[in-house]
Amino acid sequence: MSLKSELITIASQAQEAFRVSQDLSPDVKNRILTEMSVALIQQKSLIIKANAVDLKKARSMSLSPAFVDRLTLNDNRIGEMAESLSQIAQLPDPVGEVISGWRRPNGLWIEKVRVPIGVIAIIYESRPNVTSDCAGLCFKSGNSVILRGGKESLNSNIAIYEILKAVLKKFKIHPGMVNLIATDDHKAVNELLQLNDYIDLVIPRGGEGLIRKVTESSRIPVIKHYKGICHVYVDKDARIPMAEEVCFNAKVQRPGTCNAMECMLVHKNIAKKFLPHMLERFRKAGVQIRGSSDVKKIFKDVILAEEKDYYTEYLDLILSVKVVDDLESAINHINSYGTHHSDSIITEHHETALRFLRFVDSACVYVNASTRFTDGYQFGLGAEIGISTDKLHARGPMALQELTTYKYIVFGNGQIRT
Amino acid sequence: MSLKSELITIASQAQEAFRVSQDLSPDVKNRILTEMSVALIQQKSLIIKANAVDLKKARSMSLSPAFVDRLTLNDNRIGEMAESLSQIAQLPDPVGEVISGWRRPNGLWIEKVRVPIGVIAIIYESRPNVTSDCAGLCFKSGNSVILRGGKESLNSNIAIYEILKAVLKKFKIHPGMVNLIATDDHKAVNELLQLNDYIDLVIPRGGEGLIRKVTESSRIPVIKHYKGICHVYVDKDARIPMAEEVCFNAKVQRPGTCNAMECMLVHKNIAKKFLPHMLERFRKAGVQIRGSSDVKKIFKDVILAEEKDYYTEYLDLILSVKVVDDLESAINHINSYGTHHSDSIITEHHETALRFLRFVDSACVYVNASTRFTDGYQFGLGAEIGISTDKLHARGPMALQELTTYKYIVFGNGQIRT
Repeated sequence: MSLKSELITIASQAQEAFRVSQDLSPDVKNRILTEMSVALIQQKSLIIKANAVDLKKARSMSLSPAFVDRLTLNDNRIGEMAESLSQIAQLPDPVGEVISGWRRPNGLWIEKVRVPIGVIAIIYESRPNVTSDCAGLCFKSGNSVILRGGKESLNSNIAIYEILKAVLKKFKIHPGMVNLIATDDHKAVNELLQLNDYIDLVIPRGGEGLIRKVTESSRIPVIKHYKGICHVYVDKDARIPMAEEVCFNAKVQRPGTCNAMECMLVHKNIAKKFLPHMLERFRKAGVQIRGSSDVKKIFKDVILAEEKDYYTEYLDLILSVKVVDDLESAINHINSYGTHHSDSIITEHHETALRFLRFVDSACVYVNASTRFTDGYQFGLGAEIGISTDKLHARGPMALQELTTYKYIVFGNGQIRT
Repeated sequence: MSLKSELITIASQAQEAFRVSQDLSPDVKNRILTEMSVALIQQKSLIIKANAVDLKKARSMSLSPAFVDRLTLNDNRIGEMAESLSQIAQLPDPVGEVISGWRRPNGLWIEKVRVPIGVIAIIYESRPNVTSDCAGLCFKSGNSVILRGGKESLNSNIAIYEILKAVLKKFKIHPGMVNLIATDDHKAVNELLQLNDYIDLVIPRGGEGLIRKVTESSRIPVIKHYKGICHVYVDKDARIPMAEEVCFNAKVQRPGTCNAMECMLVHKNIAKKFLPHMLERFRKAGVQIRGSSDVKKIFKDVILAEEKDYYTEYLDLILSVKVVDDLESAINHINSYGTHHSDSIITEHHETALRFLRFVDSACVYVNASTRFTDGYQFGLGAEIGISTDKLHARGPMALQELTTYKYIVFGNGQIRT
């Protein structure tokens, strides 16, 4: 069978599974998720064995230690995967929620009801835990899912997938609800992205290159989980100790995440007071500073920033710093160089805060708090599939609700249009 | 200036206009819309003069009478355009609505707030009224808009656009809020669709060819207003007089619309009782019937349907008719051949109705009512930009609310993540 027809077979089974599974009760779904969680723990030796094959290959290819670390599964990480499925089971079911409802003068009774989207393809890179996390989130929200992980984690993904599949089988669920593309043919992603007759949504999760590739070649709608160039703007009316704590947290607490600060903007009136102590603290924490010339005037240990630095998601202990003339310049900088992810202002001035909230065009806009809170759990939404940097359909933390759409159901008693 | 740089100039002005216009008050927006409405009436002679140029050209090119009709503007139609703007002014403002809000245990106060999407491009065909309708809807919802109409209506569109622009100028609104691509270079659409750095959303409005072309070449997210292959399924437990009235209305009342019935499905147990009188009534109304062989057995005056008929949006007095074995076959037919637009069941059986509502994967699913109600006004949502057949972001009637997205605003007092 050709790659294309193999993928069509999988995608059409996923579509069929979605269509016949619209009456799965929340209770049954949750029992299945709980049992999947238990099965991962019980059969963890199978996963670790498969993971060892992937790890051996990765080492023989001299992949980076960071890469190997992301790929590695152990008791602890499998425990986290199981815990995640068990938490998804405990979250409220989004399907069937009546979002709104009303009656029309002619007696028609209209309800806008939350329903699953359909068939969702997830394209991801090396972390094998994405396999069970995304399978769990899509299953709970009533969608069927087609998983396509990185070829480096293929054996680990297959092992996890087989365990989940066995639980579906035990409960007599259509097997097409959870699918894994288990070929290492690199053309598979591109072929998959052409199947807009079967697949309703693609979510790529990974580095910039992957997102770009998927967006450019997909005929299916894509929700991008793109990079996070997040800013903290320290206003002239900032309380300096608070500004320092928040900026330090936003940069240093976990620099490799998409909601970490990559650029700190400082109002010119407060720069001389704020920057010396702040930058000294960053220096001690090993943060490299790339600053504009005004910053260098204030603090010596600064590399002069180039234009491209402001467009860069470092994901590392590196920070761009810029002195700005006023609030408008800060907002312009953020809207021009940022990625519409998460941005924060530190200020005690009410009008300034409200103007920042209104004019910064980002998924999450903060006043006096660290950008590091942009996260499904931190927002209280529960497990998330990621942080959408798109504006359409889902923006910011993308949790169960964001994996649904709606339909209108209309009850009549013979109404016709005149 | 090259076409590409001309379009980039327009798109970047639209983006700038959007960014600086986030504090337009509902009151000012409504005054502007009302004044635009008045201006269209006052200056209608200019519009009619420009329209005459388009009409002359269309006739000289022997375009079809239906096409010329869609292109034609007269006092009455300009009155409707003005009325539409005035109605948009009276609708509630969607921007700024707090969709939900909550406090986190650490004191963070999170609000999910409705905001405009950004820069929206509308690509449409011959009807010049789309120019003012879409400009009004996008302006009210806080978006800047780039309009690209059919080249056949270029002079009419320019005349309408100039009138709207003059009102924006009078109120000192950034002119980039409403833009028209006024070149007849056919490459403009394709170039526009590459500008994903400036444009947030594309909405194509027109025939199948246009939608397909836009979807296939756009790098910007597209919401499709695709064709409507709508079904009415007459269940074995239908009340026959109601079934007859609803089916007749759904087909005949205005066959050229996307929410008209294109295919009638009839349960085998009721076919012999229901079809003869129903089809005789259709015949008298000039409706051509394309039916399966079981239909032809019951009613002579039927053309045998081919597979492709079930995939066809006739937009005319033509109807596919099929006898089905049971509810499941009806649902399968609708999900496989339909376009997920609007579908109705006629039944007195409660469980059957609920199963239909749940399993039919369409934007609007009806029980005992005509599909013709799928419409922003009929739903009580007010003026609409169209009916989305997509599942993401907007589904079904797409009114002001569907032209918005949301952002999270988060108020803290120094919270950092531990």
